[in-house]
Amino acid sequence: MSDQAMSFQLTILGTSSALPTSNRYPTAQVLHVLGRFFLIDCGEGTQTQMRKYQINLFKINHIFISHLHGDHIFGLIGLISTMMLLGRTKDLHLYAHSEIQRFLTSQINFLYFEGISFKIIYHPLNFKKEQKIFDDPKVSVYSFPLTHRIPTCGFRFEEKQPLPNLIASKIEEYQIPIRDRQRIKEGGDFTTNDGKRIPHAELTRSTHKPRSYAFCSDTRFDESYIGSVRNVDLLYHEATFASDNKDLAQTTYHSTGEDAANVALKAGVGKLIIGHFSARYKDSQAIVAEARSIFEATYETNEGDVFNI
Amino acid sequence: MSDQAMSFQLTILGTSSALPTSNRYPTAQVLHVLGRFFLIDCGEGTQTQMRKYQINLFKINHIFISHLHGDHIFGLIGLISTMMLLGRTKDLHLYAHSEIQRFLTSQINFLYFEGISFKIIYHPLNFKKEQKIFDDPKVSVYSFPLTHRIPTCGFRFEEKQPLPNLIASKIEEYQIPIRDRQRIKEGGDFTTNDGKRIPHAELTRSTHKPRSYAFCSDTRFDESYIGSVRNVDLLYHEATFASDNKDLAQTTYHSTGEDAANVALKAGVGKLIIGHFSARYKDSQAIVAEARSIFEATYETNEGDVFNI
Repeated sequence: MSDQAMSFQLTILGTSSALPTSNRYPTAQVLHVLGRFFLIDCGEGTQTQMRKYQINLFKINHIFISHLHGDHIFGLIGLISTMMLLGRTKDLHLYAHSEIQRFLTSQINFLYFEGISFKIIYHPLNFKKEQKIFDDPKVSVYSFPLTHRIPTCGFRFEEKQPLPNLIASKIEEYQIPIRDRQRIKEGGDFTTNDGKRIPHAELTRSTHKPRSYAFCSDTRFDESYIGSVRNVDLLYHEATFASDNKDLAQTTYHSTGEDAANVALKAGVGKLIIGHFSARYKDSQAIVAEARSIFEATYETNEGDVFNI
Repeated sequence: MSDQAMSFQLTILGTSSALPTSNRYPTAQVLHVLGRFFLIDCGEGTQTQMRKYQINLFKINHIFISHLHGDHIFGLIGLISTMMLLGRTKDLHLYAHSEIQRFLTSQINFLYFEGISFKIIYHPLNFKKEQKIFDDPKVSVYSFPLTHRIPTCGFRFEEKQPLPNLIASKIEEYQIPIRDRQRIKEGGDFTTNDGKRIPHAELTRSTHKPRSYAFCSDTRFDESYIGSVRNVDLLYHEATFASDNKDLAQTTYHSTGEDAANVALKAGVGKLIIGHFSARYKDSQAIVAEARSIFEATYETNEGDVFNI
């Protein structure tokens, strides 16, 4: 199986909070799951960052927008324009607050009198409770409410239980023809030419356990969404401030490094990555350090970082 | 006199055409003239580029937008938002097609229900003929029509004749008091204590000749605007294509390297700089080479380049 077909890989495009700095871009990430490329948030400059880190724009069919603050959406119109200039015709699915349609449509109508070359399918998010918003044979995506100044959702991406692998020695032993193999992987048994039935379990070996990733930004610490990120392999959680600005975090509905680590700890996640750093910090060392003192497997994110799950 | 007070300096923030690449950003430049910072066009990512090249956002009070294509305006809303987040209260002057007001206002109203913390003063451009659009004691700015698919203007920035310098030896010889010096610089004579009149011309030495910069993008080659860029010290002219794509340049209302050089030659400018390179060129060598074969003092622009006049 190719790397691409096995991928569960997150690429970080932007890690700043509302004010970008000279080396941090506003929020954007691309999650590659088994050939699907999900764009999560789309701050200004996302299309340039995608080019820089070699994410093919044409592979993006689904965009998830956590909330309608500028640092999470200002890159959308540029990305959509570029997709149009490059001749896109495929539908683009946008999961966001229902109001985003008004925001984008007014810009698109202003710029392109004759409309654009592809359809944008708007999927309004539910800000009251967790909801499955995407489902195909291999992947499900859920949104869940966070606690920010305006309606905001986090997202959880779940791989479904992968099909088991066929055991090569068994294929040879029973001379299993190619046409039967997919059916066996999907749970079928095999009957040999002389009528002997070989059970599915003897022919297959289960692969890796299904992988998951959750994205939480922007949000104030709150127990309410811990259930939605429980046991994920990788959790991205914003950590705009260090605890020296605990009060500011509260009043602006943001998190500290400590808050992020507490979520990771309580939810029992595999690994925590943090970002959305306030421009007031020259570097994120203090934020990372306080998070690590609570949850050791904490890592900061920087533009271009790739996390493989 | 400090460097800042003498400055006539152009900083290049973006040199790509409509499709940004991994190392070229959409059009934006900052011209610093004697303490004034003029932003010319504002493609996506301009605010990040400004930070990268240490242009203080608070110094920008005048923005000139050549035309309303996305690659020249998508950075405006992000820049305005950041100015607001940083507490700007000073008016911001925007010289652009009158329609830009509708484009920006709909976004601003969507994002900021309570309005923003400063006023945007809209100055609609004239797309029929050259016009003076800015004037203060030291600098004038003119807009002039270019030839593109939609209404487009170029801009010419002119320093006024600077006051002459006083000759140090004459100040000493005639013991000219400080209080008289500005008046003499502005054209007055000096009368000594014993009634002798010393003419202005004897006391002063003229400084540099006034400097000028013109910006032409986007445009098809056209004799009509040559008069507007005649004899400028520095001309920026778009050169989206090399002559192998001469026909494409014509149909898309863009220029080739040859076109840009011909404008520079006919207008008798001091130096030509080119940009707005199509993403189809791996590098701009072919475009620069063909321009140089016609107008030798041609230079390509790259992000972060600084041109002092």
